[in-house]
Amino acid sequence: MTLWRGGRLATLAGDRGWGLIDDGALLVDGGLLRWVGPSAEAPAADEVVELQGALVTPGFVDCHTHLVYGGNRANEFEQRLLGASYADIAQAGGGIRATVAATRAASEAELLAGAAQRARALMREGVTTLEVKSGYGLDADTEARMLRVARQLGALGVDVRTTYLAAHALPPEAASADDYIDAACRWLPALQAAGLVDAVDAFCEHIAFSPAQVARVFDAARSLGLPVKLHAEQLSDQGGAALAAGYRALSCDHLEFLSPAGIQAMAASGTVAVLLPGAFYALRETQLPPIQALRDAGVPIAIATDHNPGSSPTLSPLLMLNMACVLFRLTPEEALRGLTVSGARALGLADRGRLVAGQRADFCIWDGGHPRELAACFGHNPLIARVFQGVQGES
Amino acid sequence: MTLWRGGRLATLAGDRGWGLIDDGALLVDGGLLRWVGPSAEAPAADEVVELQGALVTPGFVDCHTHLVYGGNRANEFEQRLLGASYADIAQAGGGIRATVAATRAASEAELLAGAAQRARALMREGVTTLEVKSGYGLDADTEARMLRVARQLGALGVDVRTTYLAAHALPPEAASADDYIDAACRWLPALQAAGLVDAVDAFCEHIAFSPAQVARVFDAARSLGLPVKLHAEQLSDQGGAALAAGYRALSCDHLEFLSPAGIQAMAASGTVAVLLPGAFYALRETQLPPIQALRDAGVPIAIATDHNPGSSPTLSPLLMLNMACVLFRLTPEEALRGLTVSGARALGLADRGRLVAGQRADFCIWDGGHPRELAACFGHNPLIARVFQGVQGES
Ligand SMILES: [Zn+2]
Ligand SMILES: [Zn+2]
Repeated sequence: MTLWRGGRLATLAGDRGWGLIDDGALLVDGGLLRWVGPSAEAPAADEVVELQGALVTPGFVDCHTHLVYGGNRANEFEQRLLGASYADIAQAGGGIRATVAATRAASEAELLAGAAQRARALMREGVTTLEVKSGYGLDADTEARMLRVARQLGALGVDVRTTYLAAHALPPEAASADDYIDAACRWLPALQAAGLVDAVDAFCEHIAFSPAQVARVFDAARSLGLPVKLHAEQLSDQGGAALAAGYRALSCDHLEFLSPAGIQAMAASGTVAVLLPGAFYALRETQLPPIQALRDAGVPIAIATDHNPGSSPTLSPLLMLNMACVLFRLTPEEALRGLTVSGARALGLADRGRLVAGQRADFCIWDGGHPRELAACFGHNPLIARVFQGVQGES
Repeated sequence: MTLWRGGRLATLAGDRGWGLIDDGALLVDGGLLRWVGPSAEAPAADEVVELQGALVTPGFVDCHTHLVYGGNRANEFEQRLLGASYADIAQAGGGIRATVAATRAASEAELLAGAAQRARALMREGVTTLEVKSGYGLDADTEARMLRVARQLGALGVDVRTTYLAAHALPPEAASADDYIDAACRWLPALQAAGLVDAVDAFCEHIAFSPAQVARVFDAARSLGLPVKLHAEQLSDQGGAALAAGYRALSCDHLEFLSPAGIQAMAASGTVAVLLPGAFYALRETQLPPIQALRDAGVPIAIATDHNPGSSPTLSPLLMLNMACVLFRLTPEEALRGLTVSGARALGLADRGRLVAGQRADFCIWDGGHPRELAACFGHNPLIARVFQGVQGES
């Protein structure tokens, strides 16, 4: 048993407010929080760590990433600024197809090396739970390779949740989208049997898959007892959120063009809205997600990095806190909940995201006086230490 | 003599292009670059460091910061998101006045502790030259204290240039703006005599000082042989840039509302345009600086963090590279020049900012294949090592 004491805790206990405990303590045993409260009332423990007034928050849950891939797309970033259109770049083999080609060409060891470096960057900013999607393989072997690599990231000291996203884009060799969806559904049972799939995702958009095609993927997931998520309403309103809510989806993600009907469906099904300010920023989007309507409907709001090599090459959950406030006008508290308790819920996890007894002992120790400071600054990392299942990582 | 060899050098030699040397070497002696070229042609040296294919760029020059201050303004950031107006916050004693009060109340040691922590964060992202402005004291003692603290930051292993910015805002106790400008001019000679002032700056804006008042500050600077800079045309076109150009200003900074006449005046005087994407982002500005017109006129463009506790609380020059591209549509090469050779020029420094023989041996070693990658990612720091005057810092 270890007692961490003398910190300013942002517990996020309850549904509103920071849940601040100004001089607070955490008793940790067996990787779990056993007791949380004022230092003055803390039980005795064999080992005591003095927090010296540092700020403590729950560990960050990055609930939407595409962390495993080959290559990078900095050349396209430059080409666009030199005047190339998206069509020019696509014609030159760029966009997601470039990442698919580089990912297929990469060995498992190469993919792991790149993804591990990126996971460590996220961990240096306090991530203790990390979702990773497949979706740059688009063939049975490479999708499996991506998911195996994602699973291996857990050895770094971060809890990894894997999501099967074969329905991310149409591979160049596919005869038709329907044929490809058939194949993607066919590949799933073996991957699940291998323990590689925690959830199933798809991209519902006019440039990706139709609601009917997504429904077939979701049916395949349901028949295996797997929860679903959806990239929905990013570029247009496809009715994807309502479809996903019908499958009791854990989350719908992006949501810039979400309709009132979609919001009501998500509220009814308890589906989390995952907002991705990094992609909004990098794509220079102007259509904001319907934040006030989501609040009014009581839909939980999560935020995530959406790390990917094209539209959101960021490895900073802290920057996402700030961008959620600056670009989406979330309050700092909403943003922090989005990266902790609501992020966890978007992965179907109720055992983390708050500093309360019974939760996992995943927490971050920050140089700062108030949790709002984490959101107010940008491009700055005040992490002092990251504690994962009760164990402090090297800093 | 030390030879650094086997790196990919982005030399920025010449006026255009990256100046890439794919397998390049740098010979360093006495804090200067003595020779730069292909590794295969490198002269012999006592000591050899293998760069192992890493990317090397000039050290970053952050030519516009307000790094020394007391307190922080995260509470205002939160209040605005909770619905408070700027007027509400000003009435509650917020805004720049809050920082002035906190700075006046802080001891020299307290100011130094905060500024040193921030300077180290900038250095961890490759900054080797750092400009720091006064302007949160607005009285003789506190302005002097700020400048002394700025000078002391040089002990961290970064070259510091100090800028006197007493004409930043009107202090609450001032009888009138004209009286205050008189005082600000009166304080300058002793500060210069103490070796605390490398340049003189002012804030020309309807909420700050008029062109006529700025001219008096610039006259005081000129009589002492000090170069000038100006916060100009951020919120409205005051004709500040043309005024500053008339004094052969080193730079005009912000420039969202810069007029064609201002551009022509800057081009004629060789004045650098310092663009500050962090403040543009955080203030959610929509009026872009006239970038294409600046290019067309041949005005050098620098970028900087503008670190300050209110409108740009960022400590990431790398994020500024990305924001300069995403928000201002600079090319990655323009952005990198903005943070190196043009940033140096905005401080009147011609001895740094490129990897060519004769320049200071200030450079950065990055994990990356091409310099455009530094701008394409955001919220990520691939710095391997920072070399300042030929000496590699601890990483
Ligand atoms: Zn995604
Ligand atoms: Zn400024």
